[in-house]
Parts: sequence; structure tokens; C-alpha cells
Amino acid sequence: MENNVKPANGKLGILIPGLGAVATTLIAGVEAVNKGLSKPIGALTQMGNIRLGKRTENRYPKINEFVPLANLKDIVWGGWDVYSDNVYEAAVNAEVLERSLLDSVKAELESVKPMKAAFDKNYAKNLDGTHVKTGTRLDMANELIEDIKNFQEQNGLDRIVVLWCGSTEVYFEESEVHQSIVAFEQGLANDDKLIAPSMLYAYAALKLGIPFVNGAPNLTVDIPALVELAKYTETPIAGKDFKTGQTLMKTIVAPGLAARALGVNGWFSTNILGNRDGYVLDDPDNFKTKEVSKLSVLEEIFKPEANPDLYGDMYHKVRINYYPPHGDAKESWDNIDIFGWLGYKMQIKINFLCRDSILAAPVALDLALFSDLAKRAGMSGVQEWLSFYLKSPQTAPGLAPEHDIFKQLTKLQNTLRHMMGEDLITHLGLEYYQDVVDAM
Amino acid sequence: MENNVKPANGKLGILIPGLGAVATTLIAGVEAVNKGLSKPIGALTQMGNIRLGKRTENRYPKINEFVPLANLKDIVWGGWDVYSDNVYEAAVNAEVLERSLLDSVKAELESVKPMKAAFDKNYAKNLDGTHVKTGTRLDMANELIEDIKNFQEQNGLDRIVVLWCGSTEVYFEESEVHQSIVAFEQGLANDDKLIAPSMLYAYAALKLGIPFVNGAPNLTVDIPALVELAKYTETPIAGKDFKTGQTLMKTIVAPGLAARALGVNGWFSTNILGNRDGYVLDDPDNFKTKEVSKLSVLEEIFKPEANPDLYGDMYHKVRINYYPPHGDAKESWDNIDIFGWLGYKMQIKINFLCRDSILAAPVALDLALFSDLAKRAGMSGVQEWLSFYLKSPQTAPGLAPEHDIFKQLTKLQNTLRHMMGEDLITHLGLEYYQDVVDAM
Amino acid sequence: MENNVKPANGKLGILIPGLGAVATTLIAGVEAVNKGLSKPIGALTQMGNIRLGKRTENRYPKINEFVPLANLKDIVWGGWDVYSDNVYEAAVNAEVLERSLLDSVKAELESVKPMKAAFDKNYAKNLDGTHVKTGTRLDMANELIEDIKNFQEQNGLDRIVVLWCGSTEVYFEESEVHQSIVAFEQGLANDDKLIAPSMLYAYAALKLGIPFVNGAPNLTVDIPALVELAKYTETPIAGKDFKTGQTLMKTIVAPGLAARALGVNGWFSTNILGNRDGYVLDDPDNFKTKEVSKLSVLEEIFKPEANPDLYGDMYHKVRINYYPPHGDAKESWDNIDIFGWLGYKMQIKINFLCRDSILAAPVALDLALFSDLAKRAGMSGVQEWLSFYLKSPQTAPGLAPEHDIFKQLTKLQNTLRHMMGEDLITHLGLEYYQDVVDAM
Amino acid sequence: MENNVKPANGKLGILIPGLGAVATTLIAGVEAVNKGLSKPIGALTQMGNIRLGKRTENRYPKINEFVPLANLKDIVWGGWDVYSDNVYEAAVNAEVLERSLLDSVKAELESVKPMKAAFDKNYAKNLDGTHVKTGTRLDMANELIEDIKNFQEQNGLDRIVVLWCGSTEVYFEESEVHQSIVAFEQGLANDDKLIAPSMLYAYAALKLGIPFVNGAPNLTVDIPALVELAKYTETPIAGKDFKTGQTLMKTIVAPGLAARALGVNGWFSTNILGNRDGYVLDDPDNFKTKEVSKLSVLEEIFKPEANPDLYGDMYHKVRINYYPPHGDAKESWDNIDIFGWLGYKMQIKINFLCRDSILAAPVALDLALFSDLAKRAGMSGVQEWLSFYLKSPQTAPGLAPEHDIFKQLTKLQNTLRHMMGEDLITHLGLEYYQDVVDAM
Ligand SMILES: NC(=O)c1ccc[n+]([C@@H]2O[C@H](COP(=O)([O-])OP(=O)(O)OC[C@H]3O[C@@H](n4cnc5c(N)ncnc54)[C@H](O)[C@@H]3O)[C@@H](O)[C@H]2O)c1
Ligand SMILES: NC(=O)c1ccc[n+]([C@@H]2O[C@H](COP(=O)([O-])OP(=O)(O)OC[C@H]3O[C@@H](n4cnc5c(N)ncnc54)[C@H](O)[C@@H]3O)[C@@H](O)[C@H]2O)c1
Ligand SMILES: NC(=O)c1ccc[n+]([C@@H]2O[C@H](COP(=O)([O-])OP(=O)(O)OC[C@H]3O[C@@H](n4cnc5c(N)ncnc54)[C@H](O)[C@@H]3O)[C@@H](O)[C@H]2O)c1
Ligand SMILES: NC(=O)c1ccc[n+]([C@@H]2O[C@H](COP(=O)([O-])OP(=O)(O)OC[C@H]3O[C@@H](n4cnc5c(N)ncnc54)[C@H](O)[C@@H]3O)[C@@H](O)[C@H]2O)c1
Ligand code: NA
Ligand code: NA
Repeated sequence: MENNVKPANGKLGILIPGLGAVATTLIAGVEAVNKGLSKPIGALTQMGNIRLGKRTENRYPKINEFVPLANLKDIVWGGWDVYSDNVYEAAVNAEVLERSLLDSVKAELESVKPMKAAFDKNYAKNLDGTHVKTGTRLDMANELIEDIKNFQEQNGLDRIVVLWCGSTEVYFEESEVHQSIVAFEQGLANDDKLIAPSMLYAYAALKLGIPFVNGAPNLTVDIPALVELAKYTETPIAGKDFKTGQTLMKTIVAPGLAARALGVNGWFSTNILGNRDGYVLDDPDNFKTKEVSKLSVLEEIFKPEANPDLYGDMYHKVRINYYPPHGDAKESWDNIDIFGWLGYKMQIKINFLCRDSILAAPVALDLALFSDLAKRAGMSGVQEWLSFYLKSPQTAPGLAPEHDIFKQLTKLQNTLRHMMGEDLITHLGLEYYQDVVDAM
Repeated sequence: MENNVKPANGKLGILIPGLGAVATTLIAGVEAVNKGLSKPIGALTQMGNIRLGKRTENRYPKINEFVPLANLKDIVWGGWDVYSDNVYEAAVNAEVLERSLLDSVKAELESVKPMKAAFDKNYAKNLDGTHVKTGTRLDMANELIEDIKNFQEQNGLDRIVVLWCGSTEVYFEESEVHQSIVAFEQGLANDDKLIAPSMLYAYAALKLGIPFVNGAPNLTVDIPALVELAKYTETPIAGKDFKTGQTLMKTIVAPGLAARALGVNGWFSTNILGNRDGYVLDDPDNFKTKEVSKLSVLEEIFKPEANPDLYGDMYHKVRINYYPPHGDAKESWDNIDIFGWLGYKMQIKINFLCRDSILAAPVALDLALFSDLAKRAGMSGVQEWLSFYLKSPQTAPGLAPEHDIFKQLTKLQNTLRHMMGEDLITHLGLEYYQDVVDAM
Repeated sequence: MENNVKPANGKLGILIPGLGAVATTLIAGVEAVNKGLSKPIGALTQMGNIRLGKRTENRYPKINEFVPLANLKDIVWGGWDVYSDNVYEAAVNAEVLERSLLDSVKAELESVKPMKAAFDKNYAKNLDGTHVKTGTRLDMANELIEDIKNFQEQNGLDRIVVLWCGSTEVYFEESEVHQSIVAFEQGLANDDKLIAPSMLYAYAALKLGIPFVNGAPNLTVDIPALVELAKYTETPIAGKDFKTGQTLMKTIVAPGLAARALGVNGWFSTNILGNRDGYVLDDPDNFKTKEVSKLSVLEEIFKPEANPDLYGDMYHKVRINYYPPHGDAKESWDNIDIFGWLGYKMQIKINFLCRDSILAAPVALDLALFSDLAKRAGMSGVQEWLSFYLKSPQTAPGLAPEHDIFKQLTKLQNTLRHMMGEDLITHLGLEYYQDVVDAM
Repeated sequence: MENNVKPANGKLGILIPGLGAVATTLIAGVEAVNKGLSKPIGALTQMGNIRLGKRTENRYPKINEFVPLANLKDIVWGGWDVYSDNVYEAAVNAEVLERSLLDSVKAELESVKPMKAAFDKNYAKNLDGTHVKTGTRLDMANELIEDIKNFQEQNGLDRIVVLWCGSTEVYFEESEVHQSIVAFEQGLANDDKLIAPSMLYAYAALKLGIPFVNGAPNLTVDIPALVELAKYTETPIAGKDFKTGQTLMKTIVAPGLAARALGVNGWFSTNILGNRDGYVLDDPDNFKTKEVSKLSVLEEIFKPEANPDLYGDMYHKVRINYYPPHGDAKESWDNIDIFGWLGYKMQIKINFLCRDSILAAPVALDLALFSDLAKRAGMSGVQEWLSFYLKSPQTAPGLAPEHDIFKQLTKLQNTLRHMMGEDLITHLGLEYYQDVVDAM
């Protein structure tokens, strides 16, 4: 197979609804990297290698030397928020990065000022920002389309990606208005409250053929209407919920236990965090969205129906606690009750002293750059190969998401190999996305 | 490809040098399973599934319904030890399984009495057993060959596997006498002290074309002389060191960190254990053998030369502490110092309250059954596809071992698929073992 | 001073409302100890020493050789429960002690059958027992008085103690009916729903001059009406809430930090437990009672008003999670955020793998035996010297409870020394209880 | 009793052999506090309160308002080291305090330059400093006396204290030369290698009647010769080994377990640290000194001979691991195997992420200020009331040290009350030090 990927010429705009902890850590970090002050650790697109050919060939190029990715220096930042703080101010408030680092890129950060947000307070009661658009859903969607076009023009951009880093919205389930693009557009016109603000951004991007990534657990682009639109405008989409911290660890450890056929009868996960994200999640309705996202992973990895002796009685509980002393230094503690040979019991305790936004920023970067790559490679619709980065991966309808991070990695790597005409090494799964295959 | 594997007809003898904690837990467990009293949790050969075809085909047969494995009811046990306790007595001493379980299979266990060991106290100073063979190394080797033949005959066995579960021998490196089968046989005749007792068992097995597995970290079958013999007699071999506990966890977690390009600058591992294995390892010379086995895994997974920014400065320390209060309930504590985006530091602490022999027994069982399968499938020499079970996997000369447990699992599963003529899903690596491929 | 304590002649009845996990572990344990099968570890009355005189005198008698305590062999058990299971059956259900131990005292346990409970389902909605008394509160109280008298007579008892080991009742605060014995007795007659079932047992005991101990966090005997009655009938009372597990650890560690003037800005405590107690506490109203009991301890030990620089900003959060896989093996995890010299931050993590009822049973025993001692020593009303055993110690009105376990221990020991006419070693605090002093 | 303590007029010199991590953290901290930049958290002399009278009197003065202590602003610093770095440079190397804090007191720190050390490389092989005195032990001692006198004169000091913060010296036991002051002075003249360098500093101080404190575990002032000299010159002495980190936690938790008569059958303690102290302790001879200091504490608290059922089989193991990634952020992990009612087993795990020098600096400060106070109060010889701060407290000959931190605290507080003529609250223990009592 030949490589038909278009080159990454010109500038790439990354437009972010939600200029909070994750977004400002991402932006400040890339600027610091561009000045040679820091390294983009945790980003496969910047630091990762990929094995090609046989083990004995010893071919391990950097990923960004293998596939044509946008250069960090070609990125132009923009975004929206319900607060009008510029990115420097927002980054200072977030208390993730130390002041001296922020000051070294102060000018760059100050120049990024949020546009007014498309917002509805019912979706995040703990927020009281006033830097918001007015009018109906349709008005707001149209304004967002204008915002994007202006941003592209003013900055002379070749391509754009939109990346949702906004707060977690309250929990709700799909309804009629989300089932088709016709119904959705009718809903916009009717100012239907069941259309979440995040969906307006997704709609605006997809209308313009611009890739959209969702870093939060809310549905957003994971509804039939917007999947339909993405296919129609040949646009890549990916979501939901950046996979970091405790869930990251879970999708590493659980496959290891399953690999060895060790039984699990209980998994208790607790988290303490004190940032604004934690504050929003202190509202039970918003927490519900997150909990659903976090609970699903073990089911899929352990497959209790297929392995009732090992996982049939597993009790899984996840707790998130707002705990101000820790700020963004989210910490998790897991107790895992396992059993082995003849049913004898053992326990694993994992205490992860992590930093939430430090883990999320490189994930956000990779998702943005890989979505842009996908677009140039002619891939559209759900990008399941990006599941590797997501707590609750969006899949083709009817297909269970894959949560095992090692299978996800294999899928990601083989997708890159496939794009570039290299031999595959493992389960690609492109067969589930015939349109993607056709397009290549 | 066609499936040419011979069926598992008749009885299978499993002969074990070293009837200690692991071996008695294995034997008692299989007997309890055969009586329907317990489940063989942790053994892929008994509990595991394998995916065949595409995800959407939903084909997940049990492994033992997919490949022709010996039935647990067809196993006949035997072994050697420097102590003359029968398996019931040895199991009671080991204090791994509760008395009531042992009593439910007492007759079966009492009937397994060790043959006299081929032993040399210099290889395990903390042992003072007297149930040992006398004479030169050559005498002992010949006696072992007779032991095996008699065992086969008396029990009417179709096939045999030899499984080293003896104590860890003192550390030493390869020398002249280990380089070729000619030199080795000359060494036997000369009673060369550099030939370890465990090598005598391996030699005896291989001479008879009987698969040999090494569950300890000592070299044993991992020397050119015995690899040569294995090829000559077309016999599968596998080693070294059952992968359990802390190292198991390490080869699960490290690939997860590497997958995400998270940096590591320190990994401290400490262990407390109070069984006889721990007592033998309290001797620094024997510990050295174990330490070497345990230290190598991170190097290979993180590849510091290829990723100097992430793993170039990693400090890795492993400590094993003899701590009688815990008996066989080995416990490990790991502190992992990682760094992410822009070099920000995070920490992971893992406390594994495990049971050493409970984890080792199913590994020993799988290795025995898969070695027997390999023999019937016409595979010989080093069985790298069994790396999944080993801390320090033996490989083809010049080939670095693979420690990532998920790659090891893929390799194991694809080897099974390959054997049975199913489509592969991932990196098989049989290319490194041309003889195996030829044989199929 | 002279020792005027009456000897512990004859039999002592211990009557327990609530024959659940704690009570059955206590009863089975004492019976096993009486048969010489086990040791009463954790009970100061059985295992503890006390220092007398100067360090150099080397006088460390056993406590039960120093003060005249009832002998374990002289105890006769009885109780009430809403379920009709005898103590053997209840102990089997509780799954605290292993079956073989219970079987060794089966006859003794089976002979203890609960009397019908004074109960009101509004106080514990998750319970559905039907072995209950009917009629008004006054009827029930009178029946309890009869129950106690009959028990005394039928068993030829010299003395009795009543020990509440019933479920935690729902949270409510003191109201009018609890303010005086007159109001309380009026309330009984009116069947006032604000009188909790546990208060009926306390009332019955105190009317008869029988010491009453409350092992749960509900108010029970900690209301003015019953304190008044206790003084009037010269009866010792003690409560609330057995101090075990996480709170025990907290009242050990917190005084240590305070001793060294180390600051604390956060303390997060989480618990997982899966027994019936945990199930009752899964109801938010019942949890509230427990939470209030657990939260108070740090305030008192750290005295934030007196030490604002060190403890003024302390954030304290306690979570209890019902987690069936652990049964009675309650487990706690604490994260403590401290700061030292110049405000530099440090952290302490404590993971206590405890067994709830194993910790509570000896506490219950000591409280029963020491209350009986107090009665014989002529002490009445609130026994603050027993704070050592209680999460939420009842004190003289207007006096803050002391939570520092080391000060509590000193108080307990000095009370014993004082009783027996030995030199005090430290802060006795009897001055707050003039009646006690008068009585001596 | 009357208060005869002399006031703290004029300047106090604190002279420190060993200007490493602890000393520089102490000096920089006091200077920062004096500038109002930071708070002296962890120092009882600065932050602590003391209760006077009855609980109801509510008298809790600050300790430094209750006893006449030197003011931090009146301290003048000096010291010796084998490296010639000034305190600013040494503090930067130590990597304990952040650079910005050090820079805010740079001038003050740079002005403190070490005098040449009295040193012998056999006592700390991992050190290679050359800023050392030459000549015999007698020469060096005399030079130290001159150093001290000059320092006093040049700075116009009222009083001086000498505080050993030097590296841990190799392990050795008392011998002839340490038994009397006569033998010792003879040894000086003979340049006897059994006289450790640290003893030279102690000798010099005591000759001049200057209080000497030993923060390391080496014998130093804990030998009969120097105790004799201290009495003769009426000088207070205190040692050994600042109590911080893991041992601090141990002497908090162990008394709590003992208080409740909970049994202990194992206590495993491991430490990881990467500072220069850790590097010196990587030499087994130096580690031995530390190990002896750390092992003793549990014995004394649990008294296994008096409590054989509870502590007779306790296995105690302490490991220290040099682990560079952690620098001064020493971390400890303890596994405690306990048992309760009927022998049922439980476990406690404590993970202390501490900062070694941050914990040690306030301890060093308190010891210096309290020693100066003792001198002015007319107390001389061993100051057992300072045991509170020490891992291996020096006591009167024949008297076992008290390790329980709560008893130590009571002793400390009562000594202060006693000094000031207040009522005692608990065990004073002055009876063991008749000379002290006489002197008051
Ligand atoms: N590791 C992580 O930090 C992590 C991991 C997984 C997912 N997430 C998700 O990423 C999202 C961002 O996390 P964060 O820590 O940066 O949170 P944050 O609270 O710091 O930032 C979110 C920002 O979104 C803004 N916002 C909310 N609604 C908006 C709207 N309709 N339009 C524009 N802006 C809006 C808020 O004002 C806020 O500034 C959250 O949904 C979070 O759950 C974060
Ligand atoms: N999880 C585990 O238990 C685990 C994991 C990995 C590896 N291993 C390795 O497996 C081996 C067995 O472990 P174990 O816990 O059963 O130890 P063990 O000490 O209980 O048993 C070993 C037995 O081998 C016998 N033995 C020693 N030398 C012998 C010889 N030359 N011939 C015959 N018998 C001999 C000893 O007498 C003893 O009975 C050890 O090498 C151990 O390091 C164990
Ligand atoms: N470590 C501990 O186990 C611990 C520690 C502190 C306090 N406590 C408290 O001790 C109490 C007992 O704990 P447990 O673990 O034995 O609980 P449990 O649920 O096993 O037993 C409580 C019993 O009380 C009975 N009961 C409830 N209301 C009653 C009534 N009105 N009259 C008579 N019986 C009644 C229930 O039917 C049940 O059998 C609880 O309040 C608990 O919170 C327990
Ligand atoms: N929490 C703690 O840091 C802690 C706790 C308890 C005890 N201690 C003890 O305190 C001492 C100091 O610890 P640190 O962390 O500051 O160590 P460090 O290594 O940073 O400093 C010790 C200094 O002493 C100097 N030194 C060695 N021998 C000397 C001599 N004869 N004369 C003059 N200087 C000499 C060294 O050159 C070094 O600069 C050590 O003995 C340590 O064991 C420290
Ligand atoms: Na260790
Ligand atoms: Na929780």
C-alpha cells in the first residue's frame, strides 16, 4: 500500500472551548518547549518511537519522523471561555505550573484571549462566568462558525482542530433531538435545551469540516446526529474523556491481571482532588457523567459473562472526593481484591500521586495532532485508533469499546504503519470502519 | 496452514526436582481440582480463553478446547528432593495451603515420595538435607536417567516433562565446560564442580528427549551445551524463573508507562518474605542469582539508549528481605518516581500483598502442559513463546528477551493460533527460530 | 488514701442489646479463653500491666492483679436482638471468627438466646427483624426491667452490667423530652417517638442501679435526663462509640504531630467495610451519626483556635464506603498533609488492614469490667476515665472531651492508682467530678 | 518552688561541627524567620504551647512566653566542616530549600564560613574534604578550644552552645580510653585513634563549660569520661541522634499499640534517601551506628520480657537504602504485623513522604535553645528531659532510656513547669538526677 497522506504545510490552529487547567497547561507547555525550556514528556507525537519491521531490523524511528505531523512551532492557539481571563491569568489561577515557568512565556500566553462562550448554566451549576454569548442555540452555533472563520482568516491558518477542554457537563442521555442531523438542526432552531453547549462547538466545527476532539466525559460529539454530520463533511471525530490518573492505571493493571487469569472480586477506587474540575464534579449531576465514564472500563476488560469464575462477582466502586489541600495534585488510592490458585486471596494497593493536568496536556496535544493527521490522511468519522487516549472511547455503533491500553496501543501503532504502507504487526480493526479503508 | 499437533493420549508424568512450596502447592492443587474441590485459578491452560478471528465474530473458546492439552486427570506426579518428606509432609511444612484442604487429598499426596536428589551443598549452603545421591556428576546423571526411565515404566506413562522447582542455586557465570555438549560430557566425567546440580537433571531429561522447564533463576538449561543437546534430541526447553509477584507487576506497569512516554527516574522495589525460598535467598550468593534475574526487566522494557530523555537516568534498586512473620505471604512495595509534561514529577506506590506459591503454581502447571504440547507439535529448542511466564526468559543467542507481558501474551496466543492454523493477530517472532518453523 | 473497693464476689451478668458481630465476637472469645483455647489480646483488664511507683522500683503488676476485677469465668451472658438467632447462629452469620473456633464453644453459644428487642424501625431502616416487643415506649421499658430482673434471678447473679452493642441509630439531636428525668418519664408514657430504643435499655438499667455502657455513636445515655438518673441511683455510665480502627489510629498519630508542633492542612480518611454495620451505615441518616462521632476528634487534639498557624486551615474529610468483598475486615486509608520547618510540605499515608470486631470485642470487655469495678468503688455518673475506649467520650456538662489517647491512658491508669491508694503519676482530672472524689 | 533561671540577656553563639544539610537548613530558616519570610514550624520553642494548671483554667501560654529562652534575633552562627564551602554554597548543594528562599538570605549565609575541621577519614570513608586541621588529637582539641574562644570574643557573645550536625561516624564500642577523664586526656596526648573526631569537639566545649548536643548516632558525648567532665564543669549535655522521620513515627505509633495491649509479631521498616547523609550511610560501618540507634526503640516501648504473650516473638528489621532520585526527600515505608482478640492478625502500613532536614532543623534549634536554658537554670550533666528529640537518648548510667514520645513530652513539659515553679502534671523523673534537683 502507498502512503497518500498530505503533508503538514502551513499553520495549524488549535481552538479550545474551555481555557482552564488542562488547556493552559497545554498551551504554556508547548510555548515553553518551543523556546527550548522544557520537554514535551508524555506526548507520543513528540517523544515516542515506533517499531517497524522485524525485531532484528532494529528500526525504531521517532513517530514524528515516521508520519507527517504538524510542527509545534506552526501551532496558533485560540479558544472560548465563560471567564474572560487571558491564558496567562487563567494559568496562574489553575496553579498547575510554577510561576517562573509561566513568566518565561508570559507574552505568548497573555496574547491568547478567550472568545465569548456558548454556555448554559444548567449544564455546570458551579460556574458563574459572564463572558458568554446570548441568543438561541442556533444563534450561538452561527456565532461559533463565524468565530472559527475569523480566527482562520486573521491568523492565515492552513488547517484547524477544535478540542473540547471545557468543564464536565451534567449527566443526561440521548434523546430524539440527537438522533439525526435533521432533528438536531431543527432543535437548534427551536433552542432545544437538550442540546448541550459542547454540542454547539462540535456542530460548528463539523459543519466546516474541522476535526473535533472531546476531552470531557459528556456526550457532545458522541450522538448519531453529529456522527452523521462528520461522515457527510468527511471529518474525523474522537472522544470521550482524556484517560489520565486512576483510569489510566486501571487500564494498565487490569489487562495484566486478566492476562494471567487471576480472579478479581473487588476493586475500590478513591480519588482526592482540589482543582476547579473537582469543584464542578462536587455537584452530583456532573459527577454522574464522570462516574459512568469511569465505571465502564473494568467490565469490558474482564468480560465477566465470558469468565464468570474469575470476574462474575466483581464489586467495583469509584469515589471522587473534593479535597482542596491537594489542588491539581490529584491523588488516587486503589484497593484491588484478587484471588489465585484454588481461590486464595491476595490484595494490591496502588497509590498514585499524580498531577492531573500534567497527565492530560500531552494527551490533548496528541489528540489534536493525530486528528489533524487523520484529516490529511483522508480518514473521517469516529477515529477508534485514538481510544488509547480516552476513558470512554467512542466507537462504531454496536461495537463495544476496547479499554485494554495495550490493545489500544497496538491499534494506534498499526494504524500509523498502515497509513504509511508498512507491514502491520497486530490487530488493526480497520475492518469495522469500511469507509476509512475505502478512503485510503 | 494445517494443524499437525499429535493428540494428548495416555498419561503424562510430571517429574519435579525440588518438592518444596511451589511443587507441593501445584500437586495438592491439581489433586483438589480433580476432586472438584477447587478451581485452578491463574492457569491459562485451565481457565483462559483465546480470541479467534475478528472481534465481531465473537469467537472466544477456552484455550484447552482450542489446543490439545493433557487432561489434569491424566497427570502422574514424581520428583526428587534433598529431604525425604513425602509431598503431604512437605506441603504441611510449607504452610501455603490450609490444613483442611491438604487433608482432603492426603492419600494422593502421601503417595508421592521424593527420589534421592542430585545435590552439592556448595550450591545452597542454607540447606542440610541428606536424602541425596553419591558419586561423581556422571554417576548422578546416569542415576537420574534411570530414575526417569523407571518412573515411566512403573506408571505406564505416554510422555514426561521435567520441571525444576528446586531452590535457587548460587550465582556463577558460564564457563568453558558449559559451551558445548562435548565439553559438558567431559565435565560430567571429570566431576567438574562448575556443573550445577540442576544441570544434571536437565541433561538427563534432554538425553531422553523429555521437555525441561526451569522455574528458578539459575542458569541450568540456559547454556550452549544444553541448548545444543535440546536441538539434537528435538526437545523443547524453557526458563528461567517463574514470573510472579513484584516482577509480574513490574512487567505490567512498566509497559504502561512506556506506552504513554512517561519518564522514569527511579524505581525502588523491596520485598519481604519468610519461607524457605526466602531463607535460601538470605545467603548473598544465592540472592545474587535472583537479583540479576530481577534487575534486567526494566532495562529491556524502557530501552534507555533509545529513549534517553525518558529513561536515561533511571535508578533501579531491588531489595529482598528475609522476614519470617510473613511466611509464604510475600509482600512487595514499590516506589516509582515518574515525570510527565515539562518534567513535572509524580509518584506511584504499589503494595502487593501476594502469596508467592499461589502465584507460582499455575505458572508451573501451564509451563509443564505447554512444553508437552510443544513436543507434540514438533517444536524444539528454546520456546520463547513461553516468556510470558518467566522473569528472565531464555532466547535465541543474540536476541534480547522481551519482558513486556502484553507482547509476551500476544506472542503466546499467536503461537497457539499458528499451531492450529488460525489467522494470526500480532507479532509472532517465529522467524528467529527457523527450526521451529521448518518443523511445522 | 485507703482502698475501699468492694471485692468481685459471685457472678457478673453482662446483658447486651444487639447480639451482632461485636457481641458474638466478645462472647465466643471469652468462652474460648475460659477453655484455654485462646488469649484475650487487646483487653487491658486481661493482658495489661500498670507501672507503680518510680521507674527504678520496677513494679509492673498485671492490672487484674492490682484492682479487683470480675473473673472471666464468673460472667453470665444474656441479651436482646431484633433477630431471634442464638449467639452461635449470629456468630456464624457475622463471619468474624473462623468456624472451627466457634464450633469449639458451640454449646455455650447456642445457650445464649436473645430476648425480644425494644425496637422502632425508624431508627434503623435497613433492619427487618421481627423478634421485637410491642406496646408503647413505657410498656417496652417496663418489660426490659422485668427481663433484667428475671435474668438476675434465674442465673443467681451478684451484679449486672448492660452494654449496648446494637446498630447505630439514625442521627437526631437532643430535644425537650431528653432534658430531665421528669420529661423523659412523661415521654415514655406518651410513647414519644423522640425517645430512641437504645434509651429504653439505658433507662431500664439505670432504674435498677445497673451500670450502662454505650458502644455505638447514638446519644442513648448521653442526655441530661439519664445523667440525672445515673446520679440519683448512683450508677456509673460510659459512652459513646467504641474507639477502633481508623479513629484509634487517628488519636494515636494526631497527638504525635501536635507534640512536635508539625502543621496539618489536610486529613482525608476513607474506609471500606462490608459487614452488617456497614450496611446499616449505608443509610445516610445512620451514617450522619457516625460521621459526627468521627469528625470531632481532630479538632480537640489540634486546638486550631489556640494554634492557628499550625491547624487553622486544616481540612478534614471522612468517608465510609460499604464494600461487601471485605466483610468484617474493615480497611482504612488515610492521607495526611502536614508541613514543617518554613512551611515545607510532607505527607503521611496510613493503610490499616484491620478487623473491626476483633478490635471492638476487647474494648467492650474492658468497658463492662471497669464499669462493674466503678460501681463497686462507689463511683457514679459519667466515667470520663473510660474515654480511652471511646470515639466520642461523654463528659461532664461544659467540659470538652479529651481525645488524645495518651492523655486518656494516663487518666485511666491514675484513676486505678487513685482507687487503690497508690501515688499518682499524672493528670487525674477527678476534680471535675467532685461526687466521685467525695465517694472515695 | 521558686524560679531561679537566669535571663537570656545578650547574644547566643551556636557553633556547629558539620555544616551540611541539617545545619544549613537550620541557619537559613532562622534567618528567614528573622526577616519575617517564614515560620519556624516544628520548633516547640517557637510555636508550642504548654498547659498550666487545671484543664478548666484554660491557661495555654506559648512556651517561649513561659520560660526565658534566647531570642532568635540574638543568635550568632559559626561552625566547622571538612569542606570549605560557606553556608550559602553548602545549602545550595544540599538541595533542601528552594533557591529563591536561600537567595533572600544570601548575605547572611555567605558570611558564615566553616573553620577547619577536626577530622579523621577512618571515621567517614565516603568523605574526601581537605579543609581539616592537622596534628595529634591533643593539638586538634586545643585548636578547637581556641576557635571557640576567638568566636566568642570576636562576636561579643554572652553564651555559646555547640551542636554536632556532622556525618555519622563509623560504629565502635566504648573502650578503656573512654572510661574516665584521666584516661581520655591521656589518650588525647597519645593521639589514640579510638577517640573519634566528634569527641574532640565535645571535649573542647565541656572544658569551657559550654553545653554540647549530639544530633548524630555516634557515641561522642555518651561516654563516662565526658559525662564526668560535664558534671565537673557543670555543663548540660544531650544526645544522641535527632529523632525524625521513621523513628519519630515509630515512637508515636508503638506506644499506641502498647496502650491497647495489641500484640506485634513483626515490624519491617525500610527507608529510601539520596542525600549526603544517605551516601555516608551507604558504608556498612557507618550504617551500623545508625542501625543500632534505630533498632532499640521498639524493645523499650514494648518490653517483651514483661509482655511475652504480646511482644515475645516480635521480629524487627530496619533497612536504609541509598536512593539518589529522592535527594533529601527521605521516604519510609513500614509494615507492622499486629494481632488482637484471640490472636487474629491485622496489618498497618505507613508510608511517610518526609523531608529529612526539614524535620531535623527545628529539633536542632530546640535542643540548642533548651540546652542554653538548662545552663542558665543551673542544670548539668545528662538532660534526660530532652529525650523527646532523640532517637537514642542518653540517660543516667544503669537507667533504660524512655522512647515513648508521649512520656518524653510529659517529662519535658513537667521539667519546664518545675523550673518555673508551676504544679507538675505528670512523671518528672528528676529523682534519677539528684544533682539536678540539688542545683535548683
Ligand atoms: N487530567 C485532567 O485534568 C482531565 C482528565 C480527563 C478529563 N478531563 C476533563 O477535561 C475538562 C477540563 O478539565 P480542567 O481540569 O481543565 O477543568 P477546569 O475547570 O480548569 O477548566 C474548564 C474550563 O472550561 C470552562 N467552560 C465551562 N463550560 C464552558 C463552555 N460552555 N464554553 C467555554 N468554556 C467553558 C470553564 O470556565 C473552565 O475555565 C473537564 O471536563 C475534565 O473533566 C480532565
Ligand atoms: N513465587 C514463587 O514461589 C517463585 C517465583 C519464582 C521463582 N521461584 C523459584 O522456584 C524455586 C522453588 O521455590 P519454593 O518456594 O518452592 O522453594 P522451597 O525452598 O520451598 O523448595 C525448594 C526445594 O528444592 C529442594 N532442593 C534444593 N536443591 C535441590 C536439588 N539439587 N535437588 C532436588 N531438590 C532440591 C529443597 O530441598 C526444597 O525442598 C526457587 O528457586 C524459587 O526461587 C519461586
Ligand atoms: N469495631 C466495631 O465493630 C465497632 C466500633 C465502634 C462502634 N461500633 C458500633 O457497635 C455497634 C455494633 O456493631 P456490630 O458490628 O456488632 O453491628 P451488627 O450489625 O453486627 O450488630 C448489631 C446488632 O444490633 C441489633 N439491633 C439493632 N437495633 C436493636 C435494638 N433496638 N435492640 C436490640 N438489638 C438491636 C441488630 O439486629 C444487630 O444484630 C454498632 O453501633 C457499631 O457502630 C462497632
Ligand atoms: N533528619 C535528619 O536529617 C537527621 C536525623 C537524625 C540525625 N541526623 C544526623 O545528623 C547528621 C547531619 O546530617 P546531614 O543530613 O546534615 O548530613 P550532611 O552529610 O549533609 O552534613 C554533614 C556534614 O558534616 C561534615 N563533617 C563530617 N565530619 C566532620 C567533622 N569531623 N568535623 C566537621 N564536619 C564534619 C560533612 O562534611 C558534612 O558537610 C548526621 O549524622 C545524620 O545522621 C540527621
Ligand atoms: Na528494603
Ligand atoms: Na472514599
